[in-house]
Amino acid sequence: MTLTPNRLTNWDSFIAELNGIETIQDPNQVAKLSQDYYTFSPVLVPQLTGKVGDLVVRPANEAEVVQVAAVCAKYRVPVTIRGAGTGNYGQCVPLEGGVILDMTRLQGIPWVKPGVVRVEAGVKLAQLDKKTREIGWEIRMAPSTYRTATIGGFIAGGSGGIGSITYGQLRDRGNLLAVRVVTLEEEPRVLELRGDDVQKVNHAYGTNGIITELEIPLGPAYPWVEAIAAFPDFMSSAHFGQALGDADGLIKKLISLHADPIPTYFTALRPYIPEGSHIALLIVAEGSLEGVQALVKEYGGTITYTKSAQDAGKGFNLAEFTWNHTTLHARNVDPNLTYLQSLFPPEKDLATLEHMYHHFGDEVMMHVEFLRMGGRAVPAALQVIRFTTEERLNEIIRYHEERGIFIPNPHTYILEDGGRKAIDPVQLAFKQEVDPYGLLNPGKMRAWLEREV
Amino acid sequence: MTLTPNRLTNWDSFIAELNGIETIQDPNQVAKLSQDYYTFSPVLVPQLTGKVGDLVVRPANEAEVVQVAAVCAKYRVPVTIRGAGTGNYGQCVPLEGGVILDMTRLQGIPWVKPGVVRVEAGVKLAQLDKKTREIGWEIRMAPSTYRTATIGGFIAGGSGGIGSITYGQLRDRGNLLAVRVVTLEEEPRVLELRGDDVQKVNHAYGTNGIITELEIPLGPAYPWVEAIAAFPDFMSSAHFGQALGDADGLIKKLISLHADPIPTYFTALRPYIPEGSHIALLIVAEGSLEGVQALVKEYGGTITYTKSAQDAGKGFNLAEFTWNHTTLHARNVDPNLTYLQSLFPPEKDLATLEHMYHHFGDEVMMHVEFLRMGGRAVPAALQVIRFTTEERLNEIIRYHEERGIFIPNPHTYILEDGGRKAIDPVQLAFKQEVDPYGLLNPGKMRAWLEREV
Ligand SMILES: Cc1cc2nc3c(=O)[nH]c(=O)nc-3n(C[C@H](O)[C@H](O)[C@H](O)COP(=O)(O)OP(=O)(O)OC[C@H]3O[C@@H](n4cnc5c(N)ncnc54)[C@H](O)[C@@H]3O)c2cc1C
Ligand SMILES: Cc1cc2nc3c(=O)[nH]c(=O)nc-3n(C[C@H](O)[C@H](O)[C@H](O)COP(=O)(O)OP(=O)(O)OC[C@H]3O[C@@H](n4cnc5c(N)ncnc54)[C@H](O)[C@@H]3O)c2cc1C
Repeated sequence: MTLTPNRLTNWDSFIAELNGIETIQDPNQVAKLSQDYYTFSPVLVPQLTGKVGDLVVRPANEAEVVQVAAVCAKYRVPVTIRGAGTGNYGQCVPLEGGVILDMTRLQGIPWVKPGVVRVEAGVKLAQLDKKTREIGWEIRMAPSTYRTATIGGFIAGGSGGIGSITYGQLRDRGNLLAVRVVTLEEEPRVLELRGDDVQKVNHAYGTNGIITELEIPLGPAYPWVEAIAAFPDFMSSAHFGQALGDADGLIKKLISLHADPIPTYFTALRPYIPEGSHIALLIVAEGSLEGVQALVKEYGGTITYTKSAQDAGKGFNLAEFTWNHTTLHARNVDPNLTYLQSLFPPEKDLATLEHMYHHFGDEVMMHVEFLRMGGRAVPAALQVIRFTTEERLNEIIRYHEERGIFIPNPHTYILEDGGRKAIDPVQLAFKQEVDPYGLLNPGKMRAWLEREV
Repeated sequence: MTLTPNRLTNWDSFIAELNGIETIQDPNQVAKLSQDYYTFSPVLVPQLTGKVGDLVVRPANEAEVVQVAAVCAKYRVPVTIRGAGTGNYGQCVPLEGGVILDMTRLQGIPWVKPGVVRVEAGVKLAQLDKKTREIGWEIRMAPSTYRTATIGGFIAGGSGGIGSITYGQLRDRGNLLAVRVVTLEEEPRVLELRGDDVQKVNHAYGTNGIITELEIPLGPAYPWVEAIAAFPDFMSSAHFGQALGDADGLIKKLISLHADPIPTYFTALRPYIPEGSHIALLIVAEGSLEGVQALVKEYGGTITYTKSAQDAGKGFNLAEFTWNHTTLHARNVDPNLTYLQSLFPPEKDLATLEHMYHHFGDEVMMHVEFLRMGGRAVPAALQVIRFTTEERLNEIIRYHEERGIFIPNPHTYILEDGGRKAIDPVQLAFKQEVDPYGLLNPGKMRAWLEREV
């Protein structure tokens, strides 16, 4: 058993053994499909530029995935699984070349029922929603990339998003019901994990199994209204956001705060943003709109824009200015901008948030996304940062951590460092079981790199 | 303007002016329709026994309600509005005779759309659900009396119930969208209140307007599973309940805890209750069941019974052993039992609940209903109490209050005393506007009784 992957120089016999499964060898295309959105991080760019796979393989169904896995195991070639490649941390950038396993042809939706859907890994989130909405349901949460991102990539690489203010994050019990996983062995097995066992592969960056199919819980497809509320000062918007997050009778999908000058980066929204104001981007159920309006007023804000549920699909989607799309818009205006991810402690008075809002001034611009964690609405933030040096960035991170703010660092491609910083023994054990040669996304799981062999 | 209601001795001309609107004069029936479930309280029984109305009037629609209101105003007779009469505090017992205004013939459901329904006041909650479920929605919360209680009575007299663990209580912004109210004047007006204005009549015991129609938000009609979990000790069940309440990814409608020996009062459930165990009665979404099972196990419990969503309607309804139905079952076995209502402070370690669970021993048996308040799952309790004297009962109440437990006292028919104890200036002002003669449910609103005239 060798534990270092092979670097094949001649792929002909490998390809022959794929028995006609679709491949891409054109170097330009392979290079393109070796990238994701790590370019948001000036720290990652020098580390990942030029890392490319050797070959893209595009299985059309689970049987083909099994065959690809068998051939990869036989030849001991690294396998980096790819959904839509919208990850932010080089999650699907191949560090050691090899096969890019493109999952986007797995497009089936075996069944939908009230509250649950069974779906193949390559289905785009927007596509999935289209299907489930036929019976009045929709996915509980989605990244702001939901138009292009796949469900497999979201589970393997994402954390939460629009909807997390109601349902928490992907890691929370109940937000992923089952996964089917193909192992990377000469004779690949297909495993179905249910209940707490799904945590073995949930958010593992595709390092310990190829997810082919998933069972995902659904939430009700309310008629959703989009709204912009403008506030004269940031902390009023923050207290409003917390109050809306805590309002049990008001149904919401998004509470996204943007301190001035972030809103100036949102070109399309300019007509609705009074000069110098701080804004909340909201998605709420139609039936809750009157209540939300009353709350906005209570906190001194003004609603400057609404889009009714009937007009969904028309014009811009407010969601596409939130979560990490905020950074995207900011970087479109100024490519020196980058971002941070942080989770604030639950505090009634939002004192820590207020301190951080003021502390770094213009260098760290406050962008808050409220989400539910452990049963409470808490402010998370994806601050927009004027980047100078890596040292300064780390200084900023340290200052946050010293004040009890948790930072899942977006400037690393290492699974654990970008998350809870701790080795996950369950995920490591599962990797040992399903990827004995260590071929899946090599170099990403610290637990594997540092394990005792 | 006279401010004390009349006691009519001859009702003939009054009835004549009703122009054929249905009335009931038979003294037995009138007496029956003058009662509610105040018999749960040994304190209220001596205060309310024998209080009866003179005449029951049964309008069939809003136009008839307007006409009844006009005639009552003209004759200055007290009007006590009645839904199904399932209230617990003598809310619809007429203290000064007069007309019992039975609203149960207002049975229309003008429209239902995803997330919202428009409904007349006399519609029973179960009936309303039947209609809204046709399009996949249901009322957000219901009292355990949902089979008989009316939506008008629930809004005017109830507080919350099954569903409150997700949506909070009726008083929370967003849980009541609009009300149509008929005033009690010679020329009655019909007012539509929306937004925060609904609070003018929300939970006002029918003292300040006759609600004819309501707009109510709906929640998704998940396929619901009922389950019983048994625990060897009460505090394990309590920590489980809190954890389930805090689990953002698990969809729930009911978390109802019953310390031993309360479960012994539930005859129909006996086969599923291991001797001496403490139980949690649960209603959760089908898709969340596996997650809930894992959580039960984590806290040392065992699931002893489940009823699948397909079997809804078969056998017993678990909901009908919870909220104040718990007291009903207990009193069926031992009529000396009564109850308390309490709201515990939010505490991670449930220390106050644990103290109270132990403190009074068998005299105060712990029955907890988790509900959401201000964005958090908190334990509320409807303790089953071995009644001895009113003094002792008040002592028990005081002991709770001294420990930061809020007691909405169920042993009073006074609106404010049974609630937040404070005068509500908004509801008082509205009464002055819509009921200038003080005819609506006289004697129930302290603010009115003690106002300066
Ligand atoms: C502008 C922008 C905004 C974003 N907003 C959010 C957000 O709001 N919330 C959020 O969570 N993320 C966000 N992201 C990150 C990313 O878009 C999402 O996590 C997205 O769901 C990833 O899906 P994908 O199909 O693009 O996955 P990819 O980027 O292709 O893959 C992500 C990871 O999953 C692995 N993987 C993919 N498919 C499988 C499979 N079938 N089996 C096993 N492993 C697999 C890959 O190897 C990789 O490690 C954002 C990114 C950008 C650029
Ligand atoms: C066993 C049992 C369990 C219960 N469980 C719960 C529970 O879980 N949660 C809860 O909140 N309550 C509970 N209750 C109390 C009661 O059942 C509910 O509040 C119920 O919704 C009342 O509806 P009703 O139609 O019976 O109202 P009624 O008892 O007829 O009236 C209640 C009050 O509303 C007023 N009213 C009625 N209709 C109108 C109208 N159209 N316009 C203006 N005022 C009006 C009446 O004057 C009265 O003051 C319970 C009671 C019992 C006996």
